[in-house]
Amino acid sequence: MDVEAGKDSLVNGFSSVIPGWFSEISSMWPGEAHSLKVEKILFQGKSDYQNIMVFQSSTYGKVLVLDGVIQLTERDECAYQEMITHLPLCSIPNPRKVLVIGGGDGGVLREVARHSSVEKIDICEIDNMVVDVSKQYFPDVAVGYEDPRVTLHIGDGVAFLKAVPEGTYDAVIVDSSDPIGPAQELFEKPFFELVAKSLRPGGVVCTQAESIWLHMDIIEDIVSNCRQTFKGSVNYAWTTVPTYPSGMIGFMLCSTEGPPVDFKHPVNPIDENECQKSVRPLKFYNSEIHAAAFCLPSFAKRKIGPKAN
Amino acid sequence: MDVEAGKDSLVNGFSSVIPGWFSEISSMWPGEAHSLKVEKILFQGKSDYQNIMVFQSSTYGKVLVLDGVIQLTERDECAYQEMITHLPLCSIPNPRKVLVIGGGDGGVLREVARHSSVEKIDICEIDNMVVDVSKQYFPDVAVGYEDPRVTLHIGDGVAFLKAVPEGTYDAVIVDSSDPIGPAQELFEKPFFELVAKSLRPGGVVCTQAESIWLHMDIIEDIVSNCRQTFKGSVNYAWTTVPTYPSGMIGFMLCSTEGPPVDFKHPVNPIDENECQKSVRPLKFYNSEIHAAAFCLPSFAKRKIGPKAN
Repeated sequence: MDVEAGKDSLVNGFSSVIPGWFSEISSMWPGEAHSLKVEKILFQGKSDYQNIMVFQSSTYGKVLVLDGVIQLTERDECAYQEMITHLPLCSIPNPRKVLVIGGGDGGVLREVARHSSVEKIDICEIDNMVVDVSKQYFPDVAVGYEDPRVTLHIGDGVAFLKAVPEGTYDAVIVDSSDPIGPAQELFEKPFFELVAKSLRPGGVVCTQAESIWLHMDIIEDIVSNCRQTFKGSVNYAWTTVPTYPSGMIGFMLCSTEGPPVDFKHPVNPIDENECQKSVRPLKFYNSEIHAAAFCLPSFAKRKIGPKAN
Repeated sequence: MDVEAGKDSLVNGFSSVIPGWFSEISSMWPGEAHSLKVEKILFQGKSDYQNIMVFQSSTYGKVLVLDGVIQLTERDECAYQEMITHLPLCSIPNPRKVLVIGGGDGGVLREVARHSSVEKIDICEIDNMVVDVSKQYFPDVAVGYEDPRVTLHIGDGVAFLKAVPEGTYDAVIVDSSDPIGPAQELFEKPFFELVAKSLRPGGVVCTQAESIWLHMDIIEDIVSNCRQTFKGSVNYAWTTVPTYPSGMIGFMLCSTEGPPVDFKHPVNPIDENECQKSVRPLKFYNSEIHAAAFCLPSFAKRKIGPKAN
């Protein structure tokens, strides 16, 4: 099968350039592809928004794929879910009200629920099929939905935010896919302005923000939009995730005007002993890796570091 | 072409499971493969030790492959070369004598040469063809050989170390391939003992030490061997490298008994202004990323952190 055929099959969400393997080929990362050996395809479906696939891989556990792009594997999802959640929530004292946009698999909910100060967790996911598939195939991820503090809203994140009273949330976590497809709006300035409005003074947002190795141009735009929108802190952090392109993923962490937030020095460390006994121990996050996540290689620091622009 | 055929072609060092692409399939990372689109194969050869290939990729520049495994790409080699070199050399004051084992491409030499305190740089590379190929195809990497402080020794690293007078070097950098093939000995205890002997009291070694996502068992062995051998500090650090399996690579940093070395707090920061004008600016390394490199995810910290064992 040639590469063009691979691209065609990607359009249908089931790229399989190496027969018996899943290959992730995308115009988002031209000229490279990561492949996982497939033991068995467990689910294939098409929702109103995207193609959804679940397969059993031979060495990464079960894998969730949206529009041909790996969203999570059982083996390494801990890194992404724990970092996108605890980077913001450990940076402010006593977060009480949290909004998750996207994140339909439930993994971020599972992590938010570790924080005993949290009273209310809203989640707005556009695609109900992602929720259902996760509950069926990824019970250790979708377990987040079982927390009684969680309310699921199926719908568009932008529309949801427009209806949120000003200053409602302490933290907003935007767990989106890439800015091609249903998540495109979540990388644009009007969306960030709605997020800022929904946050209390000194509230925080953490958004998925791509890889410095692959998408510095997208990241520079996000940073620029965030610097215009959020009048508190604006920082970029990153973590290793083997099954994401380039092996890493970044996050934008911003705060609104109000009590200052120093993201690099977490004031609300999460203690494993405080976690509910029913929740598995943290696999990835700790206070040291929190601080380290904000240290950038020189090539990135020059473009988006505190002194850049 | 099926996967078995891919494995067969890997034996010859020229894996190409996706026609027109190079795919890295290995028993070292079963069930996954990273692929790069090939524009043109520039060199294929078989030395006394391994298969060597150079190709022009479509998005990562030229790529050096040994026995089917990517050693460097022009796009991301800065991360590996700068980190494996400056993590040890910035951790001790005024390094003067440095030994590089492996590293035939010359990239580590290029980085060592940034340190104006260094008077003598020995390199012991087993495979002369790697040196020649790098000089021909990777001039920006092999530029390290042009420094007058460099002496190239072609031969076996273990034999070389046996002949080194005790306490000769301030720092030893082991830039090896994986522990399958010609580099196998470089991961075993007798080798570490020879390295320790070659170092002055309070001297430092940095060795390539695999990925915590893939090879925790190998890393635990290395850490155990190093704790028995090096009576100063023993630390594991890591960096992001997109074209290495799992998107990251680790390093063991150890010091011999003597003046204490605190690897996490570099005492010899490298100032870009001090670098020779002919050398390109640092792309990746800085003092912040140095300190951050020692922060480990919880799953790794439990196994090899300071309190483990």
